[in-house]
Amino acid sequence: MRMRTKGSIPKARSYNGDVNVSNLGEFGLIDKLARIAGKDHADLVIGIGDDAAVWRAGPQFLLATTDTLVEGVHFTAGADRWADAGWKVLAVNVSDIAAMGGRPLFALVTLAVPPRTQTNALERLYVGLVECARQYGVAIGGGDTVRAGEFSVTVALIGEAQQAGGEPLLLRRDAARAGDRIAVTGTLGDSAAGLRRLNEGAVDSNRLISAHLRPRPPLAAGAEAVGAGLRCSIDVSDGLLQDIGHICTSSALGAHLKASTIPLSDELRQAFPEEALTLACNGGEDYQLVLIGPEEQIKQLQTRVSERLTVIGEIVAGEPRVSLLDDEGREIAMPVRGWDHLRPTA
Amino acid sequence: MRMRTKGSIPKARSYNGDVNVSNLGEFGLIDKLARIAGKDHADLVIGIGDDAAVWRAGPQFLLATTDTLVEGVHFTAGADRWADAGWKVLAVNVSDIAAMGGRPLFALVTLAVPPRTQTNALERLYVGLVECARQYGVAIGGGDTVRAGEFSVTVALIGEAQQAGGEPLLLRRDAARAGDRIAVTGTLGDSAAGLRRLNEGAVDSNRLISAHLRPRPPLAAGAEAVGAGLRCSIDVSDGLLQDIGHICTSSALGAHLKASTIPLSDELRQAFPEEALTLACNGGEDYQLVLIGPEEQIKQLQTRVSERLTVIGEIVAGEPRVSLLDDEGREIAMPVRGWDHLRPTA
Repeated sequence: MRMRTKGSIPKARSYNGDVNVSNLGEFGLIDKLARIAGKDHADLVIGIGDDAAVWRAGPQFLLATTDTLVEGVHFTAGADRWADAGWKVLAVNVSDIAAMGGRPLFALVTLAVPPRTQTNALERLYVGLVECARQYGVAIGGGDTVRAGEFSVTVALIGEAQQAGGEPLLLRRDAARAGDRIAVTGTLGDSAAGLRRLNEGAVDSNRLISAHLRPRPPLAAGAEAVGAGLRCSIDVSDGLLQDIGHICTSSALGAHLKASTIPLSDELRQAFPEEALTLACNGGEDYQLVLIGPEEQIKQLQTRVSERLTVIGEIVAGEPRVSLLDDEGREIAMPVRGWDHLRPTA
Repeated sequence: MRMRTKGSIPKARSYNGDVNVSNLGEFGLIDKLARIAGKDHADLVIGIGDDAAVWRAGPQFLLATTDTLVEGVHFTAGADRWADAGWKVLAVNVSDIAAMGGRPLFALVTLAVPPRTQTNALERLYVGLVECARQYGVAIGGGDTVRAGEFSVTVALIGEAQQAGGEPLLLRRDAARAGDRIAVTGTLGDSAAGLRRLNEGAVDSNRLISAHLRPRPPLAAGAEAVGAGLRCSIDVSDGLLQDIGHICTSSALGAHLKASTIPLSDELRQAFPEEALTLACNGGEDYQLVLIGPEEQIKQLQTRVSERLTVIGEIVAGEPRVSLLDDEGREIAMPVRGWDHLRPTA
């Protein structure tokens, strides 16, 4: 039991002595639940704690992941936002499969629907979802529709891992090694900048808004990374520093990032010249891939993928934390303030 | 476009001319969305419209299904109800796999959580969920946790189908034939009766309440049915008449049920002597299996399964509807009033 500081207000505890999830946070809750769930099945190669679960199914290795968008939390139900939400809820799942180096197969779609929801809206959502499904070769296998007080859509996406010699070839969070280079696809911060523009009332789309509403995870790059011999990746969903922090925790190593190398789009620099780096480090929802491995493999991968792939730092021995450095190697103060699904938005 | 009756109040249409889902209903909505989703993948053996999706994955046939419980719609968050909700949200998915004749493998769990939710409650939910997982040999593979305004839990369950000679052996909704017997496992109506008792404020559990809170789908019976040569089943989730109605629609055949043979528990007869048959026909949430096939196969199955297995009627040529008959073969008036997830509760 955690001790209270004398005289402090016990914010972490509510009237009945229990902790509420907002205070515990997403990652504390996941830890607690993972301990209850255990990992007691021989066929479960990877359970709670990576981008997707990995399951040995006879000669195959299945990947499975799920993500939810809640109206009012993750998207706003404007007239033309339903199709975007449909695209996005599948795309964020594709991003998880990409971060395992796998290939998506089919999706189940759950709609939680207030009774007065307009049918048009759900049809628009499905149109966007099917557009994304075609883009990434995903079949819609069915799902569930339930009545609810608020609208949400959940996608469970099943995929398969590459394999060789009866073993899965995976990009894992816990496979970083000291000396590995850290690379990232595309540019970072665009999505968070797009969200700001939307919150300011922007109506016309541009690269930033499109990055937020219609993320395009680099699925082929994840598969190529496995082919190039890489074994470590995470997708940038919560924010670059926080997500690389997950790699550090899982791999028990540190990470040094060189701030000046973090790839920023011209649009981001022009729109938010003062905050571009902060948005790139903590914005989240980029759905780019962080790919980690030996320098030679990263170089080889750069010749194979069509996406921009930028080396932004390296894995180091020591405390499992992320340090953001300037060109002289001095640490830049940048609070890790990524997305926690159970805390109020920053 | 549907025509309005002159002078009628256009309840089906809201201010902007669109239909809301409450009026369209669950099955109308599913039809619309299935048309958008299409079925454009060679590996998708069964898509939208059966108890679970079936996917050809190399030499295997995967099953996948998903179900959601929403607090306040599907369960009430009393102090001791969280563990029951955890059990049930997995059990209803196991029921879908049973109704395909398959074996469940692993589950993904999505929690949509208001920030002030007590951690204790979620731990209790997981305890119930893991109890059910152990009962049915299911591994918890991970999931997602998101912030929401109301609590819900979604499980996606992946399983595998039995197979022979490279083809899946499935219990399908569209495989009934005229002359087939209709059998059902266990007793019906207990769950709906238990829900009534709970709504009346019952606190002590009994067989009826337990049937509602902790349904035990007859997984082994589904697998045995495949072994006995049966190819048609549905689980009783929406209500017996409605669910057999789905078989009729999918198979383009009628069904005759003999009311006096529908299995009712002594507890149900005693608790609701006047309404026992109605609860058994329309109550829903029994999570028993309707198993349909030639008389010889049903007889063979009766010797193999530990559950009570009762023949309640037969499949007949003609209009795809369910007729409930008395012992003289006269039709009993019994409106099909099962569960529609998008309409208000009856």
